[in-house]
Amino acid sequence: LDCKVLMGPSGYKDNPYPVFLSSASEKIDLAIVLGGDGTILAAARQLAPESIPILAVNVGGHLGFLTEPFELFKDTQQVWDRLRSDRYAMLQRMMLEARVCEGDRCSPQSSSDRFYCLNEMCIKPASIDRMPTAILELEVDGEVVDQYQGDGLLVATPTGSTCYTASANGPIIHPGMDAIAVTPICPLSLSSRPIVIPPGSVVDIWPLGDYELNTKLWTDSSLATSIWPGQWISVKMAHCMARFIVLRENYSFYQTLREKLQWAGTRIHFDNNHRVN
Amino acid sequence: LDCKVLMGPSGYKDNPYPVFLSSASEKIDLAIVLGGDGTILAAARQLAPESIPILAVNVGGHLGFLTEPFELFKDTQQVWDRLRSDRYAMLQRMMLEARVCEGDRCSPQSSSDRFYCLNEMCIKPASIDRMPTAILELEVDGEVVDQYQGDGLLVATPTGSTCYTASANGPIIHPGMDAIAVTPICPLSLSSRPIVIPPGSVVDIWPLGDYELNTKLWTDSSLATSIWPGQWISVKMAHCMARFIVLRENYSFYQTLREKLQWAGTRIHFDNNHRVN
Amino acid sequence: LDCKVLMGPSGYKDNPYPVFLSSASEKIDLAIVLGGDGTILAAARQLAPESIPILAVNVGGHLGFLTEPFELFKDTQQVWDRLRSDRYAMLQRMMLEARVCEGDRCSPQSSSDRFYCLNEMCIKPASIDRMPTAILELEVDGEVVDQYQGDGLLVATPTGSTCYTASANGPIIHPGMDAIAVTPICPLSLSSRPIVIPPGSVVDIWPLGDYELNTKLWTDSSLATSIWPGQWISVKMAHCMARFIVLRENYSFYQTLREKLQWAGTRIHFDNNHRVN
Amino acid sequence: LDCKVLMGPSGYKDNPYPVFLSSASEKIDLAIVLGGDGTILAAARQLAPESIPILAVNVGGHLGFLTEPFELFKDTQQVWDRLRSDRYAMLQRMMLEARVCEGDRCSPQSSSDRFYCLNEMCIKPASIDRMPTAILELEVDGEVVDQYQGDGLLVATPTGSTCYTASANGPIIHPGMDAIAVTPICPLSLSSRPIVIPPGSVVDIWPLGDYELNTKLWTDSSLATSIWPGQWISVKMAHCMARFIVLRENYSFYQTLREKLQWAGTRIHFDNNHRVN
Repeated sequence: LDCKVLMGPSGYKDNPYPVFLSSASEKIDLAIVLGGDGTILAAARQLAPESIPILAVNVGGHLGFLTEPFELFKDTQQVWDRLRSDRYAMLQRMMLEARVCEGDRCSPQSSSDRFYCLNEMCIKPASIDRMPTAILELEVDGEVVDQYQGDGLLVATPTGSTCYTASANGPIIHPGMDAIAVTPICPLSLSSRPIVIPPGSVVDIWPLGDYELNTKLWTDSSLATSIWPGQWISVKMAHCMARFIVLRENYSFYQTLREKLQWAGTRIHFDNNHRVN
Repeated sequence: LDCKVLMGPSGYKDNPYPVFLSSASEKIDLAIVLGGDGTILAAARQLAPESIPILAVNVGGHLGFLTEPFELFKDTQQVWDRLRSDRYAMLQRMMLEARVCEGDRCSPQSSSDRFYCLNEMCIKPASIDRMPTAILELEVDGEVVDQYQGDGLLVATPTGSTCYTASANGPIIHPGMDAIAVTPICPLSLSSRPIVIPPGSVVDIWPLGDYELNTKLWTDSSLATSIWPGQWISVKMAHCMARFIVLRENYSFYQTLREKLQWAGTRIHFDNNHRVN
Repeated sequence: LDCKVLMGPSGYKDNPYPVFLSSASEKIDLAIVLGGDGTILAAARQLAPESIPILAVNVGGHLGFLTEPFELFKDTQQVWDRLRSDRYAMLQRMMLEARVCEGDRCSPQSSSDRFYCLNEMCIKPASIDRMPTAILELEVDGEVVDQYQGDGLLVATPTGSTCYTASANGPIIHPGMDAIAVTPICPLSLSSRPIVIPPGSVVDIWPLGDYELNTKLWTDSSLATSIWPGQWISVKMAHCMARFIVLRENYSFYQTLREKLQWAGTRIHFDNNHRVN
Repeated sequence: LDCKVLMGPSGYKDNPYPVFLSSASEKIDLAIVLGGDGTILAAARQLAPESIPILAVNVGGHLGFLTEPFELFKDTQQVWDRLRSDRYAMLQRMMLEARVCEGDRCSPQSSSDRFYCLNEMCIKPASIDRMPTAILELEVDGEVVDQYQGDGLLVATPTGSTCYTASANGPIIHPGMDAIAVTPICPLSLSSRPIVIPPGSVVDIWPLGDYELNTKLWTDSSLATSIWPGQWISVKMAHCMARFIVLRENYSFYQTLREKLQWAGTRIHFDNNHRVN
């Protein structure tokens, strides 16, 4: 196999991707990422904007929503053969991009680079000696939807809907769809509900009343940036998609739900005797 | 104005539409429906398959999610002028269609006409002297997703997501999207969750263990048909869409959420002083 | 063993208890009830007011929250020996009683016998061809708390909190407590929440707007009575308690939660290495 | 009025109470606390163990669950007269106490003072640059109930049940009851549920897998202490109660629910015409 290989560490403290990208003289054809879901998410955030497909291998990860099982890689030769002869499926998943904005709402100045996420953007305060309440004004497509008080706000993709969003009682969305789920985290208001909105929506979130400057933007639970007074976060569907190579046969979202989320509809299973087939 | 007008009663006990449709010698251009949401839903189920647009006027209805406010019709002449000169918006909303199937799953026999709904298909038992527990096997695109035990199962459009689905703790979905929400009603299992699936999905629901033949299909809370042993319900996106004429300026889904659902994010409202514009 | 034994059928269609109670010349010392939870609940409703303890044996029941496992009864002689020598625990569980009232609120006339339940009182409409929305005014200790619109209202004991109440997203309460849980079933209002109130509370529920007379009182999911216009249901803690003979060693509510409700806190189990003991 | 008055600042950054307590030569008869709920909670934590009753006045507070309205204090003379002539109600509310333990579970060494709370004990990690997932083993009365993964765990009094616990979808409990609510904050597991347990329960919580030592104990959202590896938190009902002087007539928990929590059962209000009285 005539190919150049770059290797580097992975994990939540490591970010080898900028070096890879700058040191590669040609377009990178494939990234093989070994790790748990956190590692894969980091790879997707860095590699999706460069259109580099990812082959994700579950090593030491607990849940492995996004990864191929390690067993598939025992026969390395077979994996290479399948990759070279295009015998694999390519899973494309929508991502979100966020920018920090400031100034005039109608012609905002972008005061940051773009941040990407595959699971969710989270706007949430952080402090080591307080438990600050976030006050967040939510605007969708230029219309103020509501103000939320609570632990924070999640703007998630369908892929991310089974993660933090599900924990915050948000909707589980089939990852084959393009949609954005906005879910408040522990809202003070009893009537706050998650909403699912079209993928073309622009979601602007303004932190208010944050006199101690605790509010931050998190991408897939990883710190992206602080948000200063007068700034807001603008989130929309990313122009790029995460692309995963799937070697498993019979990949099914519903099977993943049952196995990874211990989704168990009934405590007693009934036979479907009527089913002819 | 040179037009023929047919008039008839409305309400949950009346169904004037088959007579209208059979007695009209030409295509019907417009149905003006006066009533509450229940009346409008019935009109949509009957008229959408015939591609007849609806001008829905809130008369005596409580919530009026789908209706134009009655005040707009006080100046009748202006309404006619706007209709004749095409000065209105047309809101299109996806619907669902259901059939009762039986026999071999791979080549099912349809044992019923098509049933339509604008809000939701509901599979739920009914009895006057018992509270039967439904046991329902859910299949999406030919794959068994789960069995649910509980009060029943809702298969809803985004339009219906603010109705029974919201009461059953299902997701609120922007009606501008095409999507299907499957929500269990009071499931026994603690881990059951609503799911949002692509509009192209085929949802098959099998009632099991119903020895007293109580299970029924309801369209927008209106009885459609009983389901016999060996039969199942197959739901998919309808080929037709409900079309509503909108005369209001500034129609907004988020405003409807706040006003009709008493959506109230914060108990204390903060000023957004940072907003330049 | 010198004892008189009365035997009769059980199940949701059978009620042998009035005959037992009227034909017994002396106080009944013990009822041995074989069945599932539904059978045991029916026995408790009939026998608790007579202070008759129940030995409940799980036969054919699915979940068996209240029953002793059938295996314990294989050695019948040992069971008799334990019963005669008082080697068993007695579990006492609070019940609720309800009456239908009418007339003047301050001096209501009781227009029914007392109805008892071990799990929950449920006020809910029933119809075979409609899905009626209940409108229920809730009064606690003479104060109007709220009006609920939706599928109905549950007034549950801690014992019942793991049943229909849990399905309706109500609180799970330790059965060793005396408390009353009021839980709306699929409320239209987004801000409705279940509440846990003191065992001494008097809960009055008025069905409103029920023009078709569908609303009924259900005790442990079993039909008790219809509620006519002008009548209301008054629920309070019963004067009697259900008494169950427990032969199992190490009975634990938390174990029941994990096993019967498939309660599973974590998907990955961590070792507690720090635990010295 | 012959009395000594000590005055000091209040607020979340101030703690004037130790100075007050040590400088008072006699038992303090009354603390008049002006502020919002946070200020009142801090006062209760410090003063309840000394059996000092609190007269709480809502000054600048938003919600004021625990406070008397400021208007009542405009006529100061009348307030003094009522206090001196015992014309007020005394509201007693259960509190929780927590200790940090280590060593042998059966004879744990207490490695901290007692911490008190009126609303809730919260075990939750804090970090300024990460969003750590807590893994917490919950033991009640010496029995392991479950492990939770998520944002943290709340152990609340009925008073606290309308605060953070309600935001985390926990049960609302009448403050006249003695009970403990254990509520997971955004648990990963779909089947985790809040539980209400008897006031005599001992709740032990072990942080596991916290390799960065982020986990902390918070009392009423205020930092109490860090939790080191091998340590756990033991929570039980406090020996002391918070005592509030109530000057309002017609205090009602249900009214508070409706007004402070914007509890709104129905969107349309029906008249109860049947009510004679």
